[in-house]
Amino acid sequence: MARFSINILGCGSATPSLRHQPSSQIVDFRDNLMMIDCGEGTQLAMRRMRLKFSRLTHIFISHLHGDHVLGLPGLLSTMALHGKTGRVTVHTFPDGIRLLKNVVEFFCREPGYEIVFEPVSHEGGIVFEDNSLTVEAFPLYHRIPCVGYIFREKQKQRHLIGDMVKFLEIPVSRLHGIRNGDDYVKQDGTVIPNSHITTDPDPSMSYAYCSDTLYNPQVASAVRGVDTIYHEATYIDADMNKAHDRGHSTASEAARIALEAGADRLIIGHYSKSYENENQHLAEASAIFPNTILGNEGLTVNLL
Amino acid sequence: MARFSINILGCGSATPSLRHQPSSQIVDFRDNLMMIDCGEGTQLAMRRMRLKFSRLTHIFISHLHGDHVLGLPGLLSTMALHGKTGRVTVHTFPDGIRLLKNVVEFFCREPGYEIVFEPVSHEGGIVFEDNSLTVEAFPLYHRIPCVGYIFREKQKQRHLIGDMVKFLEIPVSRLHGIRNGDDYVKQDGTVIPNSHITTDPDPSMSYAYCSDTLYNPQVASAVRGVDTIYHEATYIDADMNKAHDRGHSTASEAARIALEAGADRLIIGHYSKSYENENQHLAEASAIFPNTILGNEGLTVNLL
Repeated sequence: MARFSINILGCGSATPSLRHQPSSQIVDFRDNLMMIDCGEGTQLAMRRMRLKFSRLTHIFISHLHGDHVLGLPGLLSTMALHGKTGRVTVHTFPDGIRLLKNVVEFFCREPGYEIVFEPVSHEGGIVFEDNSLTVEAFPLYHRIPCVGYIFREKQKQRHLIGDMVKFLEIPVSRLHGIRNGDDYVKQDGTVIPNSHITTDPDPSMSYAYCSDTLYNPQVASAVRGVDTIYHEATYIDADMNKAHDRGHSTASEAARIALEAGADRLIIGHYSKSYENENQHLAEASAIFPNTILGNEGLTVNLL
Repeated sequence: MARFSINILGCGSATPSLRHQPSSQIVDFRDNLMMIDCGEGTQLAMRRMRLKFSRLTHIFISHLHGDHVLGLPGLLSTMALHGKTGRVTVHTFPDGIRLLKNVVEFFCREPGYEIVFEPVSHEGGIVFEDNSLTVEAFPLYHRIPCVGYIFREKQKQRHLIGDMVKFLEIPVSRLHGIRNGDDYVKQDGTVIPNSHITTDPDPSMSYAYCSDTLYNPQVASAVRGVDTIYHEATYIDADMNKAHDRGHSTASEAARIALEAGADRLIIGHYSKSYENENQHLAEASAIFPNTILGNEGLTVNLL
């Protein structure tokens, strides 16, 4: 099965602590690494998880708070020193491009790879697409403009039934079309329906990253139908007022989003450093949405 | 004895690794924390060493390579979130001020403390002075403009000989002048020389930070008479060509500087990540200058 995994590099909030790194994740899609957010220390976290700089192709920034972006200049300049080639595209708001371009040009002179900045709109929209994947931004509801990202695997090819292909002596030249759903028309004009010679494709998986944001039902609408959702859960219910004052969610609000969106699985993170551990976050979220995973540095979740 | 210590937060080079953090140190001078360089991850290293943000007053940047400065925006913004008050002065080249001011203003909005940028000249000169300490910049010889910093404790007050003060019935109002070297003139005009009523002050200590730099005898001249020298030792002798190509020193070159400068003690650091450990660095430096300390993250050296 082709890989589609989420790797958590950091799931703390606001400031790095000795327990949690600031926000960063890597979506490993068929060995193509796509980063979401890049707090200070992200480059080291990549090394700890043995995620190779050479495979990093895209970096999507959710918003321009330091804990989501201050690791970027160091990461880009370290990759240059490590002889990275190819291209890395940084997707962020136009404000961020203006600021980061200067910094990157200053500290990362003559990199052996291309650094491209692509503007993202606060209103969202498709920010990346290839033959097998789309990445879509959508609005979140934080103190400053912020977007989440949905990674959607495109529909995969149908599986050929080998015995039928053999029995019908289907020419190789037709197999590609049949994998994509074509019926097989024999030389005598007989039509063999696709469903007789193929089985359904593997399911196409999807992942949504929702951080940082207030609880808002529009987030659930935006991510409806996504299999796995990462949603910030900075606080527990006892601190709900703090959460709302600061543009954040509680663990149970994260769980409500997952429930309302009809997700299969929820990963929570972006924990405030005011807690000694996140047991209460997990308890409160699981009570509403049982299949909740407590995000943690070093965790890999396979979307299968 | 009033504290004057060097705290090593990071002594790696170029890029952070799982063994060493990028460059940063804190000179703790009588509980006033003065940082030299601020690579990525410095804020966490401060917490690990339990060095309080509230006591940090000055940050001196040697040069504008990422591994010496990219931790600054995160540190300054985390201190704002932690409710720091007072003032922090960042000393760096005018180029750095132009660049960093933008970044800091963007990520560190309305801090509860004042952030002041003070320009440093490539030619060096006194960059800070108060009643008890001077900090002087001096040129180093790297690929881009770079300065080292010398921290010099001013002469301390002489110690009163209590029995003499009592015997001569010296009024309290005169003691301050006598501690600073005045003779005591009795009411009948008799002069009691200062040396009869005081003993010498504790020695005034000094510390020089020399990173990054090629070996250059002018560095030894600049730091002559300094007690403790930190000098970069990126490479070992076998890699001397690399060192010279990249504007760095070997461990034995660092030791030669300490020897030529007449230092009491040498701390080495800024190790290339191409070595598994720094045993060879220490062996090569100690052969030339025996009192060499292998710098390491978490090390505190008291200048006494």
